Amino acid sequence: MTALPRRIRDELVAIVGAANVRTERGDLTPYARDATPLFHAYPDAVVFPGTTAEVAEILKLATAHGIPVTPRGAGTNLCAATVPEAGGIVLVLTRLNRILEVSGDELLARVEPGVTTARLADAAEAAGLCYAPDPGSRTASTVGGNVATCAGGLRGLKYGVTRNYVLGLTAVLPTGEIIRTGGRLWKDVAGYDLTRLLTGSEGTLAVITEITVALLPKPSHSGTGVGYFRSLADSGRAVTAVIAAGIVPATLEFLDEKCIDAVERFAHLGLRSDAGALLLFGDDGDGEMVTVHLARIAEICGAAGALDVTLAGSVARAEALLAARRCSLPALSRLGSLTILEDATVPRPRLAEMVDRIDDIAARHDLLIATFGHAGDGNLHPTCVLDPDDTDAVQRAHKAFAEIFAGAVELDGTITGEHGVGAAKRPYLADRIGTDQLALLRRVKNAFDPAGILNPGKLGS
Amino acid sequence: MTALPRRIRDELVAIVGAANVRTERGDLTPYARDATPLFHAYPDAVVFPGTTAEVAEILKLATAHGIPVTPRGAGTNLCAATVPEAGGIVLVLTRLNRILEVSGDELLARVEPGVTTARLADAAEAAGLCYAPDPGSRTASTVGGNVATCAGGLRGLKYGVTRNYVLGLTAVLPTGEIIRTGGRLWKDVAGYDLTRLLTGSEGTLAVITEITVALLPKPSHSGTGVGYFRSLADSGRAVTAVIAAGIVPATLEFLDEKCIDAVERFAHLGLRSDAGALLLFGDDGDGEMVTVHLARIAEICGAAGALDVTLAGSVARAEALLAARRCSLPALSRLGSLTILEDATVPRPRLAEMVDRIDDIAARHDLLIATFGHAGDGNLHPTCVLDPDDTDAVQRAHKAFAEIFAGAVELDGTITGEHGVGAAKRPYLADRIGTDQLALLRRVKNAFDPAGILNPGKLGS
Repeated sequence: MTALPRRIRDELVAIVGAANVRTERGDLTPYARDATPLFHAYPDAVVFPGTTAEVAEILKLATAHGIPVTPRGAGTNLCAATVPEAGGIVLVLTRLNRILEVSGDELLARVEPGVTTARLADAAEAAGLCYAPDPGSRTASTVGGNVATCAGGLRGLKYGVTRNYVLGLTAVLPTGEIIRTGGRLWKDVAGYDLTRLLTGSEGTLAVITEITVALLPKPSHSGTGVGYFRSLADSGRAVTAVIAAGIVPATLEFLDEKCIDAVERFAHLGLRSDAGALLLFGDDGDGEMVTVHLARIAEICGAAGALDVTLAGSVARAEALLAARRCSLPALSRLGSLTILEDATVPRPRLAEMVDRIDDIAARHDLLIATFGHAGDGNLHPTCVLDPDDTDAVQRAHKAFAEIFAGAVELDGTITGEHGVGAAKRPYLADRIGTDQLALLRRVKNAFDPAGILNPGKLGS
Repeated sequence: MTALPRRIRDELVAIVGAANVRTERGDLTPYARDATPLFHAYPDAVVFPGTTAEVAEILKLATAHGIPVTPRGAGTNLCAATVPEAGGIVLVLTRLNRILEVSGDELLARVEPGVTTARLADAAEAAGLCYAPDPGSRTASTVGGNVATCAGGLRGLKYGVTRNYVLGLTAVLPTGEIIRTGGRLWKDVAGYDLTRLLTGSEGTLAVITEITVALLPKPSHSGTGVGYFRSLADSGRAVTAVIAAGIVPATLEFLDEKCIDAVERFAHLGLRSDAGALLLFGDDGDGEMVTVHLARIAEICGAAGALDVTLAGSVARAEALLAARRCSLPALSRLGSLTILEDATVPRPRLAEMVDRIDDIAARHDLLIATFGHAGDGNLHPTCVLDPDDTDAVQRAHKAFAEIFAGAVELDGTITGEHGVGAAKRPYLADRIGTDQLALLRRVKNAFDPAGILNPGKLGS
């Protein structure tokens, strides 16, 4: 840690006020980590801007003096995207937390980046609308962080991810210019698509200070069901048959045997103990089609050899089923004090094959890796549970995940479906996109950030 | 026109064969124009590569010698994006025309860029699937051109545009590197989103040689209806009320009075002659919801003061109604020998206000400008019909469109919703995105194309 020169600190105070600049070690501690285990690094200062203009002033100062700046929302990301590995300033955007507009006429909302995902979703719902992206961390995560990481969620196949809902951005370049990309329109091709380029750029290209997102009418009906299968391969066949039947349901989540067991021991939901896989399915929409779809999915699960299929007869039961999926991570976390959650992703038909590979890799490295995730879009969350003080196990886990990423790429998949690259996946990026594309990312980064101050060492470095 | 040096021509022949290099003026003529009136410029050569590797060789040669290269598909674009204003090579990608894969299991297709949109749509349909983007030129336009311009169509609000369906690209950088962006996944955040950045980049960043697109299950039902209104303002109120009722229909198209008149005289469809606006609505989906939605829309149109609302009782009648919208352009074209079709776009609730402005501007400049377009997403196609030999009228038309673009921007809209910037809108781009963003586009362009050979003078220049 190199402390910030006194005059830089004074300039920061002049921009945002003394209350919004922290440099005491105790105040820095919460910003030395995000939700990613094993990664931490102290910043030299934490700064809380309150306006776009203040962000611009801070960035100009940082560019002029070559000070690293790591933008951050709630820090719920799982790829160490907001760990300030190069020190410098952590720029916390949670003071920019106003919902500026929710328009039913235009089916959009305009928010500042520090608004939490759940608050945006609630505001949309209050207007009879729906904000579709639903990342697992939605109660804590910010919309700014969702955009920066192109957050996914449980409804990717039917509803898409954050990128599909971002209509426009206000962003500050590292050199201080304020740009407005896109706007309030579904169709706008005036210029390169910087809106989508900034979405998923993980705070390495610009700092987002306002976001316009598309909303949908709130579906009038929804329903949920669960199928137990002897094996993941059986459940995979059911998923393929559902899609082949022309149904793209909102939810198609799976838990492997180890997850079912952990969830049951944690939450006592009455899950079967003899199944190799649990498939949670759900749909939403208008009118009776939801009922028709769910019945058809149940039928298809049966034909694919399900041990048992149940439709939730009530909202309470549906919530309980969804809870089984939602509590996978806390349930697994109880099995050890360190939980490494990954998100390798493969084409949907190769999901069972990928889980088999993960199980092989785990066995070879003598690790407990349970897998749950989004069967609809092939997005797996293999989760390794271990003791952080067992340095040999931690080393084995690193090796196992390197093999898992390589396996996913080999199956036409990717090293990260929705969590991001950050510092955690940066070593594996070239394996996925190739060295020519990596060099191109660096040149794109340089076009935005010639001094290389924004989130150095991450994407684009 | 500066002729290509003999040795460059020889090298091109060595790469693609003599049959695929044209330099005779007669052979160049079809490639001096695209579908945009008033723009033309001769290339020095037209080259037809047959593989990605050939494209890479050609681009390396062009970069080494500073020769402009304008990639082109069918040339149906309406913004002069493929007019080779700097001469050099027109790179025609129509020989790359294989459908490589249509997968029902994975809901995707993989095609070469020269496949026409309609052929892709037909191949999807044959597999019980649907390729959602439906630009007006779909029978002639290529998927490569659709991606390059981020083509829209009639179903933007419900189904999105081309960008929402591109999953992965193979592209050749001007310096010859072949990159693969994205892939077969709905969720993939490994690296900056170059897939979306290339979509809509109008052949200025890289040459696309393979495309993976998402498909949807084919909706089992569809239906269409038409409402006549006294004024566009009345039809606009109906559209707003439909959305407020939680219905986002697949089709919401409007024709103004001048269009209705021209279409009726052209196609004799039995359209009413006393209406100020025609609203064509349609929806698709599963089961009875389509019928329910259409009945509800009809009811809402009635409540908004429609003169008359009719639901198409048969497929034949539905086709006839859609024909009214589809033949707007040919019908207007018959009124004069020069037709300038534009696509200013505004937020949906401001559509009627924008059409009023267009009518005022047309009257002030003594021009016939009729307007039709996509009421659902605010995408207007004001169409000026005139005599190309009347140079004063042509001048007045240019002035009128400059005012229309300024008006759209003033109403939070844009200078182009779906046609692109190309050479035609390049002068208006800064008014929409600002000079700081324009400078950023240039730096992004430079990151891809340091020698500036790809489609010079267009986007990113």
